[in-house]
Amino acid sequence: MEINKAMQQELRAVAEEMADTARKVTLRYFRTRDLAIENKEREGFDPVTVADREAEQAMRAVLARRRPEDAIFGEEFGHSTGSSGLTWVLDPIDGTRAFISGAPSWGVLIGLEAGQGPVLGLIDQPFTGERFFGGFGQADWRRGTEKAPLNTRPCRRLEDAILMTTFPEVGTGEEEMSFNAVSARCKLTRFGLDCYAYALLALGQIDLVIEAGLNAYDVQGPIGVVEGAGGVVTDWQGNPAHNGGQIIAAGDAQAHAAALEILNR
Amino acid sequence: MEINKAMQQELRAVAEEMADTARKVTLRYFRTRDLAIENKEREGFDPVTVADREAEQAMRAVLARRRPEDAIFGEEFGHSTGSSGLTWVLDPIDGTRAFISGAPSWGVLIGLEAGQGPVLGLIDQPFTGERFFGGFGQADWRRGTEKAPLNTRPCRRLEDAILMTTFPEVGTGEEEMSFNAVSARCKLTRFGLDCYAYALLALGQIDLVIEAGLNAYDVQGPIGVVEGAGGVVTDWQGNPAHNGGQIIAAGDAQAHAAALEILNR
Repeated sequence: MEINKAMQQELRAVAEEMADTARKVTLRYFRTRDLAIENKEREGFDPVTVADREAEQAMRAVLARRRPEDAIFGEEFGHSTGSSGLTWVLDPIDGTRAFISGAPSWGVLIGLEAGQGPVLGLIDQPFTGERFFGGFGQADWRRGTEKAPLNTRPCRRLEDAILMTTFPEVGTGEEEMSFNAVSARCKLTRFGLDCYAYALLALGQIDLVIEAGLNAYDVQGPIGVVEGAGGVVTDWQGNPAHNGGQIIAAGDAQAHAAALEILNR
Repeated sequence: MEINKAMQQELRAVAEEMADTARKVTLRYFRTRDLAIENKEREGFDPVTVADREAEQAMRAVLARRRPEDAIFGEEFGHSTGSSGLTWVLDPIDGTRAFISGAPSWGVLIGLEAGQGPVLGLIDQPFTGERFFGGFGQADWRRGTEKAPLNTRPCRRLEDAILMTTFPEVGTGEEEMSFNAVSARCKLTRFGLDCYAYALLALGQIDLVIEAGLNAYDVQGPIGVVEGAGGVVTDWQGNPAHNGGQIIAAGDAQAHAAALEILNR
């Protein structure tokens, strides 16, 4: 699908409006006491907050008004069909565990899928006030009136790499072992930052993010941002990652290749 | 030592001025590219940044002007003697690994030791602009013009607790096992937040922080803040923790007792 300049501007403006709206909703609930938390799954701990649902509803209302012809796939309310060939992929609060802990590493994720992965990605961190955008040949960081281009940094050797993931267990036992084999080669491994890790990668502050068990709505926003900033995102076999699963994101193609080789041993 | 009201106000004002100064210095270096990082220890990874040293120098300059009679113990420049019976305990950048990764979970820590633990503690997070203060019967959170009292939340059972620590390995193998025994009982365990975890505890967002291998300058600021907010901080045997080592901080004395019992099995 070809998306001309005027259309690109319109689509970015829609993404920004959704992020503005979701920011207002989520901040109203962030760090309140006695936040109503339900358990989505009976086993394990997968909190869905009221904020999560309200934020997705608010984003869907923007789309209903401005882009009724587009499809939607949202974490909370699933699929809505469209006729334009474009699908908005929404995660109103990625990192709900961080959210309920008061930590500012959760984010609002927006991706725009045109058939073969996102053409636009946005990560918004409402509490720090930071927004990370990538798409249509642009990538930038904004915070209030501050603005800067987003560029990943060079990193040719794993020995120089800072690696991040969210949980030390990563995924299955086998996935954890593969992750640990990469981690053992890296300069530093850090845990717990959810989608904010992809933002730090796009900022050129870290070099690798490796995760497993992700959904499409967890990755489409981050893929748009990281690719826009010059990075590489694939699954652990080197294939497109926009449907989720095992994800490896790197700022430098050489670090990506070196880590991929270890993951596939 | 008795510290009267006027003196309390003066000491808080000095702590605030130090934090203001350290905030300016650290933000000048945060997220810059090619930050000069030295290795403090030949083995392992203990980065000391230029920012760390400059920030401590700036804080020491404030003390030299306003409180020349007080002693100082700083992470970077060690001990300086004094005659007042008060010791300022300074960690210019707690969480240097977070700092070099661009993550806003590091902090400037200030404690004021009067012989038996801190009478004042301050945690400053320059990037989010948050300051957490506890001491002299007060505890508050500030961010720009926003201000709120700091209060830990009730948590009687570990099954309801959110637990945080910085590294999954915690400390020695034995310490890791003890930590994991507590973690297995808790609702949620999160990693990677450095001193910001104590701030979240004081905010009443989480319930427990358990760490090991800490230094006095890592804990004095957090102890002041957490105790000021109504929490409890001890070592893993239930003794005073202001000299560092194994630390358990809890928002509720019942959760503290329950975790302590497991750590000592």
